[in-house]
Amino acid sequence: AITGYPKDFNGKTNFVVLLMDDMGWGDLGVYGEPNRETPNMDQMAAEGVLLPDFYSANPLCSPSRASLLSGRLPIRNGFYTTNMRGRNAYTPQDIMGGIPDYEILLPEILKEHGYRSKIIGKWHLGQQPQYLPHNHGFDEFFGAPNCHFGPYNNKNTPNVPVYKDANMEGIEFIEAQTQKSEPFFLYWAADATHGPMYASKPFLGKSARGLYGDAVIELDYGVGQILSTLKRLGIAEQTLVFFSSDNGAATYAKLEGGSNGPFLCGKETTFEGGMREPTIAWWPGNIPPGKVRFTDLGWEYFVMVLHHFMEHPNHEKRYCINFNACVFVHRPIFYYRGDLLMAVRVGNYKAHLWTWANSLEEFQKGTDFCPGQNVQNMTVRQQEDHSQQPLLFNLAKDYGEKYQIKPNSAEYKSVIPKITAAVKEHLDHLKKGEPQLNYCDDAVMNWAPPGCKEIGQCLPIPPSNKQLCYWPH
Amino acid sequence: AITGYPKDFNGKTNFVVLLMDDMGWGDLGVYGEPNRETPNMDQMAAEGVLLPDFYSANPLCSPSRASLLSGRLPIRNGFYTTNMRGRNAYTPQDIMGGIPDYEILLPEILKEHGYRSKIIGKWHLGQQPQYLPHNHGFDEFFGAPNCHFGPYNNKNTPNVPVYKDANMEGIEFIEAQTQKSEPFFLYWAADATHGPMYASKPFLGKSARGLYGDAVIELDYGVGQILSTLKRLGIAEQTLVFFSSDNGAATYAKLEGGSNGPFLCGKETTFEGGMREPTIAWWPGNIPPGKVRFTDLGWEYFVMVLHHFMEHPNHEKRYCINFNACVFVHRPIFYYRGDLLMAVRVGNYKAHLWTWANSLEEFQKGTDFCPGQNVQNMTVRQQEDHSQQPLLFNLAKDYGEKYQIKPNSAEYKSVIPKITAAVKEHLDHLKKGEPQLNYCDDAVMNWAPPGCKEIGQCLPIPPSNKQLCYWPH
Ligand SMILES: [Ca+2]
Ligand SMILES: [Ca+2]
Repeated sequence: AITGYPKDFNGKTNFVVLLMDDMGWGDLGVYGEPNRETPNMDQMAAEGVLLPDFYSANPLCSPSRASLLSGRLPIRNGFYTTNMRGRNAYTPQDIMGGIPDYEILLPEILKEHGYRSKIIGKWHLGQQPQYLPHNHGFDEFFGAPNCHFGPYNNKNTPNVPVYKDANMEGIEFIEAQTQKSEPFFLYWAADATHGPMYASKPFLGKSARGLYGDAVIELDYGVGQILSTLKRLGIAEQTLVFFSSDNGAATYAKLEGGSNGPFLCGKETTFEGGMREPTIAWWPGNIPPGKVRFTDLGWEYFVMVLHHFMEHPNHEKRYCINFNACVFVHRPIFYYRGDLLMAVRVGNYKAHLWTWANSLEEFQKGTDFCPGQNVQNMTVRQQEDHSQQPLLFNLAKDYGEKYQIKPNSAEYKSVIPKITAAVKEHLDHLKKGEPQLNYCDDAVMNWAPPGCKEIGQCLPIPPSNKQLCYWPH
Repeated sequence: AITGYPKDFNGKTNFVVLLMDDMGWGDLGVYGEPNRETPNMDQMAAEGVLLPDFYSANPLCSPSRASLLSGRLPIRNGFYTTNMRGRNAYTPQDIMGGIPDYEILLPEILKEHGYRSKIIGKWHLGQQPQYLPHNHGFDEFFGAPNCHFGPYNNKNTPNVPVYKDANMEGIEFIEAQTQKSEPFFLYWAADATHGPMYASKPFLGKSARGLYGDAVIELDYGVGQILSTLKRLGIAEQTLVFFSSDNGAATYAKLEGGSNGPFLCGKETTFEGGMREPTIAWWPGNIPPGKVRFTDLGWEYFVMVLHHFMEHPNHEKRYCINFNACVFVHRPIFYYRGDLLMAVRVGNYKAHLWTWANSLEEFQKGTDFCPGQNVQNMTVRQQEDHSQQPLLFNLAKDYGEKYQIKPNSAEYKSVIPKITAAVKEHLDHLKKGEPQLNYCDDAVMNWAPPGCKEIGQCLPIPPSNKQLCYWPH
C-alpha cells in the first residue's frame, strides 16, 4: 500500500526524466568525482534526494531505455537476443526489431491523463517507422532514432539528424506547456556522454578531465538550465525531476569514458559498475532537500506519483523492476545479460549465478570491461556458471564486490534460500517477450529519411539482406 | 607572497586538527561513500571547504604524524628506516627512536604566541619519556603514546591507558580555554578506525557496513560534538578546524578496513589510495561554505593563518610539504616509502620512479595492499626501478592511475623535464635526518609506566636486547 501522498498531489504533476548516456556513478561531484565539476547536478542533489543504489535494468543503452519507458525487464519487453547465450544487444542502424506494440510506455499512460510528452535526444528503441516515438505515446520528438547524433555524413552509414540546442528545445516545450496549463512529460535523453565524445565549443577545454569531462560539464549546464526554467516559471513544486543514467560508464573507453567510482567494471557487465546509476530525484516542496534514500527505504517519492498511473488495467499481473518504470519497495534487482539471468540482489545481498567480463578473444584485441581490476571468479574471460553455488556478496559492506561470502558460512546458508526463492518466483512468473534484437538488415537503415529530398541527402536503399546480428559481448 | 588575510584575523585564531587513523578518502558520504553514514562530516564540508587532493606526507601512521606536527617530510625529521631500502616503518612498542629535539613542532611555535595545546588520542612519535608530547610543546595529553588504546591487558605487551571519552576531554578543553580567553590548539587524534576495530556500545550495529562503519559513525558523532561546542561557545569564527586522515584505508584488512574510493591500493603504498586523504577545512565567517579547493588553487586558507607562525627563525631554509604543516601553493608532492623517493606529483602529473605493492612472500601469506586491483608495472610484488623512465599519469583525468602516458608521446616529453627538475631541486636541498626507526629493544616498552604502582599493574622490565627492527613492507 502506498501512503503519504504529498498534500499538493493533484494527478497533474509534471515529469522530467534527465537520462544520461554511459555516465558513471562516480562522474558527479556529489558521488565523489575528485575534480567536482558538476555544480548543477550537485545542487540538484542538495535540493532533492540522492539515490545511491538505484539501478538501470540493463548494462546497455537500448534494453535499459526500453525498460525505463515500459516498466518491464528487457527479457519481458523483447529487448534481448537469443542468437548467443548471455550476450548484450542493442539497436544499431541495421536492426530489424524495436519496441513491440503491446508494450505500454509511460507517455501512452500519461496521454490518457491529459499529458503531452516530448522526447529530446536518443530514442534507441528501434528505427523503423512503426517503432518511432510518435507511434509509442510521444507527441514530440527532437533527436535521433539511434545512437549518435552526429553531425556526421558519409555513404556507409546513413544520415541522422544533427543534434543541437537540446536545452532550448526542452525549455521551449516546458514554457509552451506551462502557458497551456497542460501537464507534461519531458524525456531529456542527451546522447553525450556516449562515444564518440563531443562537447560544444563553449565547453571545450573546461574540464581537468579532458573531453569526457567537457561533455559532463555541458550536460551539467543543461541540467541547470532545465531546473532554473522550472523555478522561473513557478512550476518547480508541480514537477518531479528524475536524473539518472542508462548504464555504467564505458570503462573499455579508458580515458574517453567515465568513472564508476568504487564499483567493479562498467557498461556491458552485470557487476555494480555496469548497472548502478548516479541518481537524483528533485521535487521542491515535496521531496525534503539534502536527503538520501536507499532502495530498501522504498521508492516512495517516485512511487507515490507513478502509482496513480500504474493502476492502468493492462499493467496488472505485469512484473516490474525499480523506477524503470513501475517501482515498488523491497523488490529484488535482476541483473540480466541478454537472455541470461546473471545476478540477483535481495536486500543488501547480491548473488552471481553467472559471471563474465568479456571474451578472451575480445580482450586480446584490447577490449577490457574491467581495466585495472581483477577479482577471482568474477572478472573472468569466459562465461562461468555459478548457479549451483552462487558467488555471494554484501553490497553494503563490499560494494566493490571483492570479498565473496564463504559458502560454508552461516551467513551464506541463511541468505541463499532467500535468493533462491526470489529467483524461483521471478522465473515462475516470467513470460519472455519475443526477442527483438536477433535480426539485422542493411536495407532497414535510414537511407532516405523523411525530408531527405528537400535537402538532397537521400541515399539509394540497398537490397534486403536479413541475417542474424552478431553480438560479441 | 600570501595575500587575503581574513579581516578578523588577529593572531589568536584557535586551531583544531581532527585527525582520523587509517580512514580512507572514500569513507565519507561527501566523498562518495555509497552508504552515506557521515552526516556531521558531510555537514562540516557543506559549511566549509572540501580539499579533494590533499595528501599526507607518508602512507603510514608515525611518519605521517611526525610530518603533520613538524611540517617536514619524514626523510628530514628522521621518521624512516635505512634497515632495508624502501620500507615503511613506524613506532611499535619496542621502538628506540622518536621525534628528535631539533624538530620544532606546531605546538612549540604556538606556545610562543600564547597558545595552550592538547593532544587527545594517539601520539605515535616515540614512547620513551624524552619523546612524549609534554616534551614537545603539548601542555596536555590524554591518550596513548603508541598505537592502540586498549582496553587490553596481557603480559606480552605492556599496558597502555584505556581510551575513552575523547569527545568529553576535547569539549572540556575547549570550554576551559574559552573561559580563560586563551587561544588553543586541539589535536584530536582518535585511534579508530585503526585496527583492531572498535566502536562504543551506543554505536554498535548502527552501520550497514559492519564494525568498521560503526567506528566511522562514532567518529562522525565526535566531529559533530566538537563543532557544535565551538558554535555553542560562540568561537566558531575564531577557530579553524581541519579534518583529515593520517594515511589511506587499510585495504589489506579487507572488510575490516575502509575505502579509498576510486583510488589505487591503500595504506603502506605510494599510490593515491595510500596518501590522498579525505580533507575538510572549516572556519565559519572566514571560509565561504560549500566550496572546493585543489592544491593547485593553493592552500590559502590554511597558509594565511600558519604563515604568521612560519616566520619562526628556525624554520628558515627548511623545506616543507603541504599542510603537514607549513603549506605553500604549487609545491610538488613527494611520495616516500622509507628512505626511497617512490613518486612525485607536479601539477596534475604524477611520475612513479619506483613501484611496489608488497612482497610476493607477504602476498603469498595473504597480505595484499591492492585487493581486486591489478595495473601493469604498478601493483607489483617486487620493487621495480623506473627512475630512468618514470611511469607517468595525469591524476585529473586518471585518478585511478590505470593509464600510463606513453613515453614516446609529446605529453610525456614535455612533462618529464618538469618532474626531473622538481626531483633535482628536492634532492639538492635535502638534508636527511638521522633515521629514528632502525632500532628496537624490548626493554624500552612501557612495562612500568607512571602510576602503575598505584593500580598494581607494573610489570618486570626484561633485559635490554637492542636489534635492528624488521620492516616487512
Ligand atoms: Ca548508454
Ligand atoms: Ca594510520
